[in-house]
Amino acid sequence: MPGTQLTKVGPLNLCRTSTSQYPTTQNTKELQPLMANPVCETTEKKKQQPQGPERPNSHQKFKAKLMQWVSYIAGDMAAFGEWMKGQFILLQILDWVLRGAAQVMFVNNPLSGLIIFAGLILQNRWWALNGFVGTLFATISALIIGQNRGAIANGLYGYNGILVGLLMAVFSNAGDWYWWLLLPNIFMSMACPIVSSALASINSRWDLPVFTLPFNILVCLHMVATGHYNHHFPQVLFQPRTSMHNLTWSELDYPKLFRSIPVGIGQVYGCDNAWTGGIFMIALFISSPITFAHATIGSAVGMVSGLALAAPFQNIYFGLWGYNCVLACIAIGGMFYALTWQTHLLAVACAFFCAYLGSAIANVMSTFGLPACTWPFCLSALTFLLITTEIKNIYKLPLAKVTYPEKNLIYFWKMKKEERIAKQRKEQEKDIASQQKKEKIIMAAMEMKGRQHLDACTVDVLQEESTQNRPDRKSEATELNLTQL
Amino acid sequence: MPGTQLTKVGPLNLCRTSTSQYPTTQNTKELQPLMANPVCETTEKKKQQPQGPERPNSHQKFKAKLMQWVSYIAGDMAAFGEWMKGQFILLQILDWVLRGAAQVMFVNNPLSGLIIFAGLILQNRWWALNGFVGTLFATISALIIGQNRGAIANGLYGYNGILVGLLMAVFSNAGDWYWWLLLPNIFMSMACPIVSSALASINSRWDLPVFTLPFNILVCLHMVATGHYNHHFPQVLFQPRTSMHNLTWSELDYPKLFRSIPVGIGQVYGCDNAWTGGIFMIALFISSPITFAHATIGSAVGMVSGLALAAPFQNIYFGLWGYNCVLACIAIGGMFYALTWQTHLLAVACAFFCAYLGSAIANVMSTFGLPACTWPFCLSALTFLLITTEIKNIYKLPLAKVTYPEKNLIYFWKMKKEERIAKQRKEQEKDIASQQKKEKIIMAAMEMKGRQHLDACTVDVLQEESTQNRPDRKSEATELNLTQL
Amino acid sequence: MPGTQLTKVGPLNLCRTSTSQYPTTQNTKELQPLMANPVCETTEKKKQQPQGPERPNSHQKFKAKLMQWVSYIAGDMAAFGEWMKGQFILLQILDWVLRGAAQVMFVNNPLSGLIIFAGLILQNRWWALNGFVGTLFATISALIIGQNRGAIANGLYGYNGILVGLLMAVFSNAGDWYWWLLLPNIFMSMACPIVSSALASINSRWDLPVFTLPFNILVCLHMVATGHYNHHFPQVLFQPRTSMHNLTWSELDYPKLFRSIPVGIGQVYGCDNAWTGGIFMIALFISSPITFAHATIGSAVGMVSGLALAAPFQNIYFGLWGYNCVLACIAIGGMFYALTWQTHLLAVACAFFCAYLGSAIANVMSTFGLPACTWPFCLSALTFLLITTEIKNIYKLPLAKVTYPEKNLIYFWKMKKEERIAKQRKEQEKDIASQQKKEKIIMAAMEMKGRQHLDACTVDVLQEESTQNRPDRKSEATELNLTQL
Repeated sequence: MPGTQLTKVGPLNLCRTSTSQYPTTQNTKELQPLMANPVCETTEKKKQQPQGPERPNSHQKFKAKLMQWVSYIAGDMAAFGEWMKGQFILLQILDWVLRGAAQVMFVNNPLSGLIIFAGLILQNRWWALNGFVGTLFATISALIIGQNRGAIANGLYGYNGILVGLLMAVFSNAGDWYWWLLLPNIFMSMACPIVSSALASINSRWDLPVFTLPFNILVCLHMVATGHYNHHFPQVLFQPRTSMHNLTWSELDYPKLFRSIPVGIGQVYGCDNAWTGGIFMIALFISSPITFAHATIGSAVGMVSGLALAAPFQNIYFGLWGYNCVLACIAIGGMFYALTWQTHLLAVACAFFCAYLGSAIANVMSTFGLPACTWPFCLSALTFLLITTEIKNIYKLPLAKVTYPEKNLIYFWKMKKEERIAKQRKEQEKDIASQQKKEKIIMAAMEMKGRQHLDACTVDVLQEESTQNRPDRKSEATELNLTQL
Repeated sequence: MPGTQLTKVGPLNLCRTSTSQYPTTQNTKELQPLMANPVCETTEKKKQQPQGPERPNSHQKFKAKLMQWVSYIAGDMAAFGEWMKGQFILLQILDWVLRGAAQVMFVNNPLSGLIIFAGLILQNRWWALNGFVGTLFATISALIIGQNRGAIANGLYGYNGILVGLLMAVFSNAGDWYWWLLLPNIFMSMACPIVSSALASINSRWDLPVFTLPFNILVCLHMVATGHYNHHFPQVLFQPRTSMHNLTWSELDYPKLFRSIPVGIGQVYGCDNAWTGGIFMIALFISSPITFAHATIGSAVGMVSGLALAAPFQNIYFGLWGYNCVLACIAIGGMFYALTWQTHLLAVACAFFCAYLGSAIANVMSTFGLPACTWPFCLSALTFLLITTEIKNIYKLPLAKVTYPEKNLIYFWKMKKEERIAKQRKEQEKDIASQQKKEKIIMAAMEMKGRQHLDACTVDVLQEESTQNRPDRKSEATELNLTQL
Repeated sequence: MPGTQLTKVGPLNLCRTSTSQYPTTQNTKELQPLMANPVCETTEKKKQQPQGPERPNSHQKFKAKLMQWVSYIAGDMAAFGEWMKGQFILLQILDWVLRGAAQVMFVNNPLSGLIIFAGLILQNRWWALNGFVGTLFATISALIIGQNRGAIANGLYGYNGILVGLLMAVFSNAGDWYWWLLLPNIFMSMACPIVSSALASINSRWDLPVFTLPFNILVCLHMVATGHYNHHFPQVLFQPRTSMHNLTWSELDYPKLFRSIPVGIGQVYGCDNAWTGGIFMIALFISSPITFAHATIGSAVGMVSGLALAAPFQNIYFGLWGYNCVLACIAIGGMFYALTWQTHLLAVACAFFCAYLGSAIANVMSTFGLPACTWPFCLSALTFLLITTEIKNIYKLPLAKVTYPEKNLIYFWKMKKEERIAKQRKEQEKDIASQQKKEKIIMAAMEMKGRQHLDACTVDVLQEESTQNRPDRKSEATELNLTQL
């Protein structure tokens, strides 16, 4: 889902030929397999460092092979994306559609997208079809109106499309397989890139992504334009709460409460099936364990918030308190901020804030017969991304550098290291500069004395003063001795 | 309606004296009569190119005279505006008020404004009076709070005033000739330039116009502040739809459906009289045929959308589906984008989007007892103007250059031509540079040989190849030979 | 309440030691006692101008002493704030909390804060407690998330906290001393700096303050998230008006109408007690008489607007029409614009606009069961701060320079004076330059003549020409004479 992931990777073929020599770098960090193109990077390294005579054992070989395979399917599958570039256009579009399906959860991975579609089919085939149509037409429309090809290839124009398609089917009151629905579905999907582009023009001023705002705008637009009493496209009826609901704490069903965590993740795509939610969790884990962890935390936070605010248990079981928190927690926890313990706490705080906001927005929207969609997530995540702080460990990545949490983290570490080195160098230079300055002073003093007999006493004083400020007494002393000669 | 039309035209008197020599340039493009000050421009040209001996015939003379007269009343009547600058202030203000009345439809033309006022009087004299008061006080208020005089003279502070005045009268439940209404009317009209200026501060960051947003804000503000149950200023009652309405397709009245096109244009000013709408169409045609064409297309698109979304026929006949699309289609089709076939399609797409949005906003606003006003137009047009694209033929004009579609088009063509010429020149320079480079190499080679005997044959070959400007394998080979000698 | 008041003042001790010599500068302007650190400034002046032999009489002495004491408690009490910096952290936080309490009314003064708390306790001790908790936790949260220490010390992160705490208690339907309320209170207070920081990121692009927007957002969020029918945190019921209310003008109660002015000021903190309002007025007067005056005017304007728009008398008596106008009038009248008669009128216009907007927003919000909060103030003040104008006397201070009306005014005067001096100097330089130019011409003419006999006639012509452009004929003439010698 991030803004403009224009990852530039080397050609895949180059990577392939060099895989046989992979074991030589098996002691790289565990996170590296999740990087965009670790194999290519290692080959580059290899060229610089001539291979030693040590032979890896079979265990190491196996581990390396495994990591290599993990690197192919985890992260953003950049190597696969690169290979795709040479393929037939329809195959490419399929790749973009699958990435778009996964980008809803900020995952830029066609395999995750495939798994997610499997989960959707398990839930409801008509919904899955609508989701597919939505993603497809959103992607096509982005091509037509001349959007950035790299962004399209990363699925950044598809994820709003899948949500528009899915949720229009979910909230339609005309029942499944009402084929006319495909017409507004296609229209709204094709409007997605237009709204995305317009919003990006605004949000880019603050270096912010558009999140699922286009989906929220367009689905709400469709639902409120037609409404419950429409002849062609009737919508499910949402009504504001006008009386006290029952709330007996003894009736709290703990298994259902626990199940609400995967259901909450499933509700990101409007699915109330716990198995579908579980499948989505697998899809997340494949691409990025950090994303998976924050999704789970977010869903749990949402559930707890629901209990704290005395929400009807049915809503909590149904995952309505979870899905916004899931997205908000992922976005803040490692995706747009580099993951540190401070940003992790911030992500949890954002999830709580999002749950509160979710309840508020759901009540407001029900006045218009609308669901909350993912407005709460968008607004809370944007709020938390707009914070300016003096704490250095809360580092918001430039939008162009955002990929996935693990790679973001590596980018952050690298940047910090470079900063430290630069700082050290600067200090060293400072030291040297002050050293040179002192030397100059001494030299000037010496010169002033000219060829006259140099009073030893004066030199001593000079020496003493300069050494008091600096640690390098000896060198100066010897220098002075030299000049005295 | 555009942002800051500060057209700088030469004095009218100069133009007048030179009109007798107009026939000499009668073979200029047909669009030129619609330009701001074609006569002045032609006189300037004339001075540079001494007149030839050819005498125009009477037909040509007549055509030229006609075009000259057209140039006085079409477009933005810049010559008239220039002449006005020397007149009495009250007369000037009248000009500004008339321009303001027409600027609602993006037309900067006092004659169109006069015709529009005629249409309003035909509809309802009380409304027309309120509209006039609104425009007048909005213009005066803009003068008081020190706004840009050029913008005021172009009616850019009046068009929100006329809409505020008109619609406050239209939506008032106190009946016609309720004189107290003039008080809030004057107050709200005078608030127009304040809100305009504030919104312009925001929108100018994206080089966007404020459209009719001040009107929308202020009329909604007045209506919701007082409401249906107010003692002083009761409003017409708007209520949300709470049940299925009747929809029998056999009852569709085609003549009424056809009539909804002019009615839709009339509804821009809140008028439901088809004749008034027709008069407005004449006013548009006088100033700019492109604007007229897009207004008609927009109204038709709105009507079709209404049918597609199963709207009550009465609303469609009443023009409620048309007026926003009219404005949106004009704005995108040639006004803020230069007119190409791509932007024409974009304008049609925007009109459809606007119709959808119109239905949505009407339903949302009815919850608060409010009409949709022109919110749908503003939001859809702003969205479409915020798009960034890699297609070169979708060119958004800088706000300061926006005048009217025909002149915008000429500006776009001119710019494109200049770009092409600049590109050609650059390429030529490149060619020359590479040619010179090659010559230099040859010269260097010659020099290297010094005073030795130069093989005439080799040199000829070298020369030939370099002038062919081609992948210089051979020349290099020969050069090499030369140096090897 | 202003954005980033980072006043840098000299150490207090320095000021203290020099106070005995204060009488020497007793003829400074009356406004100076309200400046940030007048004593320090005068001491600085003193150093430059050696004290004369004149001895001040006892009356002058008394007046000076009084002004000195006034300077300690009036304005933003910068000297006290400076002294506080060396104190124990808990004492510092108390200072920040008190300043935060007063910053609601744009007053950066702990004494005013103390008086305001006294007023709150008089109104309702439970509310006062909630307000205190809100301010405290908002300040602590700002420290945790690493906000600017100077802004925190000026109470800029506390004022939203006190409003959140107070109003959550005011609008709670669970009755006083419902201790569970402290939980959401603390949560929402701690969210204040987050929302403040996010909004500041947006508003700073237009150099605008965030006003009470965070409070509005968070209280509305809490109220609509829980609602009237919540088990844990039920809210007071707000419902839209659905029928005509009674309005008999003969029943208008003038004493109550008059009392609505202090009540309106009290309602800024949600208090309906006229005495509390009166206490708040004292708190304002202590810090800044201009603020006090505009608060009173604002409240009166609100009351008049309520009558004009036929509001139920009960609402007017209850101060609901006043509090937004109070804040809007203070903000525009001297706080963010330098006070001139133009901005004073603008402030009154803004108050009227705000009253209108207040009625509109109250009606809209009641649809969601919400009160208007201070949305009307925020929106109207932001609108009026966004105006761009060609009138030089409407000067919007840079946000970093905003302190309190009196000091702002001095800043504006100083700036104007500097501008005038710069202009004069420029003109003088221009004069000198043109003078020199003329001399050069004459000199050149003389040289041209060389050593030849100079024709008197030519010189005269030269002289004449030069004098036509300049008034100083004589000097030139004499110069010429001189050169002729």
